[in-house]
Order: sequence, then structure tokens, then C-alpha cells
Amino acid sequence: MRILLLLIIIFFMTTAEAQKEGKKPDFVLVIHGGAGAILKKNTTPEKERVYKESLEKALRTGYNLLKNGGSSLDAVEAVVRLLEDDSLFNAGKGSVFTHEGKNELDASIMDGKTLAAGAVAGVTVIKNPITAARAVMEKSGHVMLVGKGAEEFAKEQGLEIVSLEYFRTESRWKAWQQVRSTSKMELDWSNKPVVQQPESNDSKYGTVGAVALDKNGNLAAATSTGGMTNKKFGRVGDAPIIGAGTYADNKTCAVSCTGWGEYFIRLGVAKTVADIMEYKKASVQEAADEMIMKRVPALGGDGGLIAVDKDGNIAMPFNTAGMFRGYIKSDGTSVVRIYGN
Amino acid sequence: MRILLLLIIIFFMTTAEAQKEGKKPDFVLVIHGGAGAILKKNTTPEKERVYKESLEKALRTGYNLLKNGGSSLDAVEAVVRLLEDDSLFNAGKGSVFTHEGKNELDASIMDGKTLAAGAVAGVTVIKNPITAARAVMEKSGHVMLVGKGAEEFAKEQGLEIVSLEYFRTESRWKAWQQVRSTSKMELDWSNKPVVQQPESNDSKYGTVGAVALDKNGNLAAATSTGGMTNKKFGRVGDAPIIGAGTYADNKTCAVSCTGWGEYFIRLGVAKTVADIMEYKKASVQEAADEMIMKRVPALGGDGGLIAVDKDGNIAMPFNTAGMFRGYIKSDGTSVVRIYGN
Repeated sequence: MRILLLLIIIFFMTTAEAQKEGKKPDFVLVIHGGAGAILKKNTTPEKERVYKESLEKALRTGYNLLKNGGSSLDAVEAVVRLLEDDSLFNAGKGSVFTHEGKNELDASIMDGKTLAAGAVAGVTVIKNPITAARAVMEKSGHVMLVGKGAEEFAKEQGLEIVSLEYFRTESRWKAWQQVRSTSKMELDWSNKPVVQQPESNDSKYGTVGAVALDKNGNLAAATSTGGMTNKKFGRVGDAPIIGAGTYADNKTCAVSCTGWGEYFIRLGVAKTVADIMEYKKASVQEAADEMIMKRVPALGGDGGLIAVDKDGNIAMPFNTAGMFRGYIKSDGTSVVRIYGN
Repeated sequence: MRILLLLIIIFFMTTAEAQKEGKKPDFVLVIHGGAGAILKKNTTPEKERVYKESLEKALRTGYNLLKNGGSSLDAVEAVVRLLEDDSLFNAGKGSVFTHEGKNELDASIMDGKTLAAGAVAGVTVIKNPITAARAVMEKSGHVMLVGKGAEEFAKEQGLEIVSLEYFRTESRWKAWQQVRSTSKMELDWSNKPVVQQPESNDSKYGTVGAVALDKNGNLAAATSTGGMTNKKFGRVGDAPIIGAGTYADNKTCAVSCTGWGEYFIRLGVAKTVADIMEYKKASVQEAADEMIMKRVPALGGDGGLIAVDKDGNIAMPFNTAGMFRGYIKSDGTSVVRIYGN
């Protein structure tokens, strides 16, 4: 009799869970603040708290926007702007320095409803590269503008222009001082005093990104980065490359990547996640895992991605020690994590 | 009796044809010199002859290289160099002018064996952008370098540097003079005296490209372009975007695109052809047609692509009036075409 009762309880619990999981959320927002060798032993509870608070603030901002009927495009732009303005992350203010001591920023955005896309690369005076990317998408007739051309366009569009110094933070400057005399690149998360080689993955890939599904079923993705410390100037990573660091298509999913950009370009990671879903009928988790847990490491690269599909299912795989990440759903379910589960 | 004889003859002819088609060629080279509104009524037999001769010369050069055991990577670079040096095509010498009266060149290359890739964008003084793209791939540790950073790298690598004037040809200069006072862009093939809008497809997309399969079964792809006449400076099209204008993977195929670049980026055309083959088990023709005859026009774009798969099968679809194109196989079979079949 007790066993029967137990079975009945388990049955109802399972059903309730299945219903809860099966219900398509009205809207979903997923964000990341970079993946890498983010080890608990190398950080402090205080540092963890600061990062988590920042990610939670971004999630709440996006949640309010989406709850009030805002588009996924507006949400991912607003959230990435916040993360750009936050000097904790290697995007916008707080970006790392190139070999020449400059901050060169890249960003891209894509609208899954229309497949419209915009990107800027190698910009140095635009306060919010993600907003410039959106302006390129909506007002330039082009998809990608780089360097001075992108900056001139941003000025014409009345976007906020800042001095080169705006992006400078003391910690990034010090990190650059340590490696500037070398031709080595460093990623942006390391407590180790030694110089990092680009081949090392004991650092964090400082990219920020957001993907969202809105109440109207539209998907959007946005990515922004300050690149790699001490990179050669003119280097473009995956963040501003539509199909590599960013992709969104209402038919399948929205994706934003963070990692060793060169590998993500060579594999066209973001677009391939969408293609695996479309042509192999895989789930967003299967497609994302295929790229992040198999294809990227098979080539020797590392990193992670966030994705949301048209039904609100989420994937956040990474093959590094940690990835700053979080999501929030229309029912208020919210998670922020740093390390592996 | 006569009918029986006829049937026997037909049977043997069909079998012979099937065997001929079924035999995998030792090597294959496919090239293009741009797609667009290339109408027979707008051209002359002399002009046709000049273009065809140039394409045939490129094919013969690549054929000799591949026949002597050269790699597909060497072949596509050599062939694209020839087309860059040829002022007939909008790549390298003979490139079109930007809104500011400059020639800004883009190129990319990819090795299907290793998935290594390299690209340069917005370069103005490198004689052969495709060779710079290969140097980026092999010697920079990066995949994409843009603008002055790319030029500085090319100089360090000892690549041939030319003056801005080198790329200037009288016909391109005149074309620019016609549209410079406007903010309109023109593509590079038009006999019409009127100014072209970027929305118009009554022009040619001046891109050159090559894809090859070598004796060792390795695939490679290369693409180079001078962009759109009167484009805003800093605009990057699909040609230097790995996954959009260029892709190669020994598992599937090598692809080089030509067309309205923005649409090719938004759809990740080159990588998606490979993905449709890999995940949908489609043929190279089916995959290429899906993108060029369906997806690109559905968004409002146009253009074409060339592709060769790991078994030497070829696809050269385009949705414009014409596309300068040709191929040559190890058995010496060679075709050069301009208009629709």
C-alpha cells in the first residue's frame, strides 16, 4: 500500500515536472560575460558577488523590457549595452589593449525575424559598439563596416562618441604593460603573474552576448568584445562575424559565442548550430554541444556559447573551466552561474 | 530487328556515359569572374573573346599546377592572383572605386584539409590580396586582419606593396566619376549610362574566385574582390568572410561566392552549402541550388557560386543573367561560359 502511494506521488510529480518543462515560455533571455579558465580557487567570494550582481542586473533589465512587450532585438541590444558600459567585462568600457596600446572593439547583432544583421569591427571611439552594429543593420544598407568607415558612419548617425581614454581601466592597462614588450597575446582573465601565450587557454575570453525570444516568437542575438590583450591591430575575431560569433533565425535559434575567435570563424559556429537544427533536426542542446564539446576542441580551440530556440529551450555549453552566464524566463525563473555545474 | 539494334546501341551509349560520369577525376579546378546582368545584347563578340581567353588562361595555369601534383591551395591562390592582376576583373588591379575615390580590396582563402583560413579586408596597397590572405592563414595566428593592420602585416611578410594608383584603370575611374556625387553604389558591369542604385541588380558583382580538388583529395577555396563602386569606405562584403563568401572542408566541398555580399553574409552561403551536404546528405548541386536559387532570391539578393565536392562533382549555379565561369578536370575536359546555358 505504501509502495502504491509512493508510485502515485512519483507519477504526479513527474507529470507536473513534464508539464512545467513542456510549457513554452512567453519569452526568454540568456546572457554571457565570457568563458575561460575561471577557477574558483583563483577568485574571491567578493569578486564572484560583483560579477553575479552585474549579470543579474542585466537579466532584470532585459526581463522588464521583454515583459512589457519589447522585441528580442531591443532586449539583446539593451543588455549588451549594459555589459559594454560595465568595466568588469571585456567589451566597451574595460576592454583590453592591443599591441599598440589601443582599445579596438567589435560587435554584431542579428534579427531572427528578417535575417537582417549588422556589425562593426576595429572601432575605437564609439561608446557602444552594439548600438553602432544595430545602426549598420538598420540604416547603412550594409552588414559590416570596419575601422574609420564604421566610426564615420556612427558619427553621421549621431551615436555617442567618446575619447580613446574612455575605454581605459587601470587593471586592463596593467595587464597590457605586462605583455606589451612581447608579441604574445593574453586573454583577459588571469591571476597568474606569468605572460600568457595565445596558445594558452588559462585565461578568459572576454566577450559579452545576449540571445532572446520575445512574446511574438521573434529571436535575436547580439555579441560585443574588446578582443585579446596585445593582439595585433587589425585582428578581427568571431564576435563581429555573422555566422561565426552571432546568428539568429526564427526558424531555428539565436546564438552568441565566446571563445578563441579564430576557431569559431573557421567552424562558422553560430550558423552551424542553426544548420544542425534545421538539417539534422537536432535539439538546440544537441546542436550546441556538437560544436562546443566536439568540433571546437577537435580543432584545438575552446570557448562556449549561449543559445535559445524558437520554443524557448536554452543551451549554454562551454568547454572551459567556467563561463559567466545566466538566463531568465517569462515565469521569473532566473539563474546566474560562473563555474561548471 | 532494327529496333533491337537501336536499343542495344542506346544501352551501350548510356552505360559508357554513366561510366564516364561516375569516374572520379584526379583533380578539378573551377573558377568564376563575377555574376550579374551580363547580357549578350549588351556585349560584343570581341569583349566576350577577351574575357574567355583570360578565364582559359587561368584554368590552364591551375591545370598545370594540379597535374604536376600541386596542392589545391597552391592552385586556387595562383589562379586568383592571375585574375587579380588582370584588369578585366574587379579584384586587385582594375578594382572599382569607393565613395572616397579609393580602391579597397578584400580576399579570403581556406584549406579544406585543416580548416585553416585567412582573410584580409579593406586593404589598399597590397598587390595581391589573396596572397596576403594566405599569409594571414599561415603566419599570423589569426584568421582575419583588416585595414592598416593587415597592410602592416603584409609588409612585415615581404609581400609586394604597390602605390594606390596601381589599382586604377581608366574605365573604373570613369564609372566612379559618374556616380561619385551620389551616395549610390554601382556594381561593376553595366553598359547603361544611368546611375545604378545598390538595390539594382542590373550590374555585375565583380568578384573572382577559385575552388579546387587536388590529387591528394584535398579541397581549397579562394575569393577576391574590389567591392562595389562608390561603396562607403569601411564596408566589408562577403568575399573576406569565411563561411559567407568562402569555405572549404574535405568532408564536403569547397565554395567561392559572387553576388550581393550582404545577402551572402546574412545567409552564411558558403558554409551552409557544406552544412546542407553534411547534415542533409544532399549533393553539391542540390545544396548549391538551395542557396542560390531559393534562399538568396527569397531574401531579395542575387549572385552565384562555384563549388566542387570531395568526389570532384561541380556546381556553378547563378540567379543572374550571367556569370563568368569555367572548369577543367584532370582528363582535360574544359568549359568556359558567360551566359545561362
